[in-house]
Amino acid sequence: MTNRARIATFKRNNKLGYGAITDTGVVDLSARFGSKYAGLREVIEAGALPELVEAAKGQPCDFGLDEISYEIPIQNPEKLICVGVNFPNRNEEYKDGQEAPPNPSLFIRFPRSFTGHDQALVRPHASPQLDYEGEIVLVIGKGGRHIAEEEALDHVAALTLCNEGTIRDWVRHAKFNVTQGKNFDDTGSIGPWLVPFEGEEQLADVRLTTKVNGEVRQDDRTSRMIFSFRKLINYISTFTTLVPGDVIVTGTPTGAGARLDPPQWLKPGDVIEVEAEGIGLLRNTVRDED
Amino acid sequence: MTNRARIATFKRNNKLGYGAITDTGVVDLSARFGSKYAGLREVIEAGALPELVEAAKGQPCDFGLDEISYEIPIQNPEKLICVGVNFPNRNEEYKDGQEAPPNPSLFIRFPRSFTGHDQALVRPHASPQLDYEGEIVLVIGKGGRHIAEEEALDHVAALTLCNEGTIRDWVRHAKFNVTQGKNFDDTGSIGPWLVPFEGEEQLADVRLTTKVNGEVRQDDRTSRMIFSFRKLINYISTFTTLVPGDVIVTGTPTGAGARLDPPQWLKPGDVIEVEAEGIGLLRNTVRDED
Repeated sequence: MTNRARIATFKRNNKLGYGAITDTGVVDLSARFGSKYAGLREVIEAGALPELVEAAKGQPCDFGLDEISYEIPIQNPEKLICVGVNFPNRNEEYKDGQEAPPNPSLFIRFPRSFTGHDQALVRPHASPQLDYEGEIVLVIGKGGRHIAEEEALDHVAALTLCNEGTIRDWVRHAKFNVTQGKNFDDTGSIGPWLVPFEGEEQLADVRLTTKVNGEVRQDDRTSRMIFSFRKLINYISTFTTLVPGDVIVTGTPTGAGARLDPPQWLKPGDVIEVEAEGIGLLRNTVRDED
Repeated sequence: MTNRARIATFKRNNKLGYGAITDTGVVDLSARFGSKYAGLREVIEAGALPELVEAAKGQPCDFGLDEISYEIPIQNPEKLICVGVNFPNRNEEYKDGQEAPPNPSLFIRFPRSFTGHDQALVRPHASPQLDYEGEIVLVIGKGGRHIAEEEALDHVAALTLCNEGTIRDWVRHAKFNVTQGKNFDDTGSIGPWLVPFEGEEQLADVRLTTKVNGEVRQDDRTSRMIFSFRKLINYISTFTTLVPGDVIVTGTPTGAGARLDPPQWLKPGDVIEVEAEGIGLLRNTVRDED
């Protein structure tokens, strides 16, 4: 597997920046490009992600990994759209496909419901039912409406990961819509970084796992997704115009804590790791709301 | 009733601006304050809405109403949260309250699903079921989390109106969540302007009506709301931190076109008017998607 570039948004000395993450440190790209591109959304709007990757090649690190904290890669997307469970139940025989939903279930999250890699997810005062959902994230590079499936992947600029953390009892707090259970501040995470998207082999059959304290809880492959990445872009662009920097969180495999018997919720001390081949490993701890 | 200030976002010569709307024209406030505040979100973040109102008083108009087109007042809110139907059914006897839902149903819309006053709503290729929902809108002035009901209205900076236009069959296109039916581009409207919020009497018992081609379809009073304005702010701030410029669309009375027998959808040529005492009249036409 190629060692692909990893471009992160981070905080250092309380200031936001972006740069390339290497095994030994950070090449500060906001120092070089910050006057042109305020953040990674602007980088992607300008189609400049390849330019950043190129500029970082062979450069010495400007500072160590211990000097930064990771933030969500796109700080202010115009849209952040999430897809409901998007993998078939592993425990059911595949029957005739009639149980498959006709269209993806979609909901919207606010960026402030997410924190960065290596940060603590927040278990709120309102409920102990903090749950994980590991997912692969598409970042849109080229906008559009009514995007055909055939061309859908041309609209993707980068990939990242999401722990689409959920307050389980609050997704059914009202009669319809999961909005509130999906939007508690800092209950999910996105990151650690953007991996530039170069071709379908980066998505076609990728293993996606979620571990809690080292135990595998979710484990599936993107080749089994109910709604493909292409289909999601096509469907979403039926109703809304996608723009560069838009974030699509593409749905989780079975195996969230709510499905265990008895259910197991996340608690302070837990370590949750979402990992996908070729993209990275997104790790978070848990703390109680202040 | 006091003649309250009306501060709008508009486009003139293809350029965004903001100003005070009078009976005879526009006092251009972006010409005076644009270098300090890029738009009305920034005005509200700075707590400067009263300053703008004061500055406009007694000024001659800079241009006529026929020179501007109205845009949605807050162009880029961090959050735009909508409440499901929030008035009891007029045709049912009031029983013992047991049918009332325990918590408000919430969903999120993207700003691009709305257009401004006097613009055409767009009936999309995907469906003919374009429907109206007249609603009152709160714009948050002071942010916060866990806001008590008693203090909730101190967090409101301004009021406006919404036609929370909906593609009715697409709200049940998937198993859960109304996301897609609520987020077709330009299917709703917000405006015409912001009315600064000065006290609870502006909200306590306001008549809210929606007319289609002059026929009253929705007609109710805010004193009958299932979830009060105070309760909505309290409930929403349980899970998310509200920030200045956040928009809360507070729910519609019964009487949408879907409830008629047979259902009546909006079509090109229709004129829809959402009106609330002391806030204004939000009017839109309909056109087909290009």
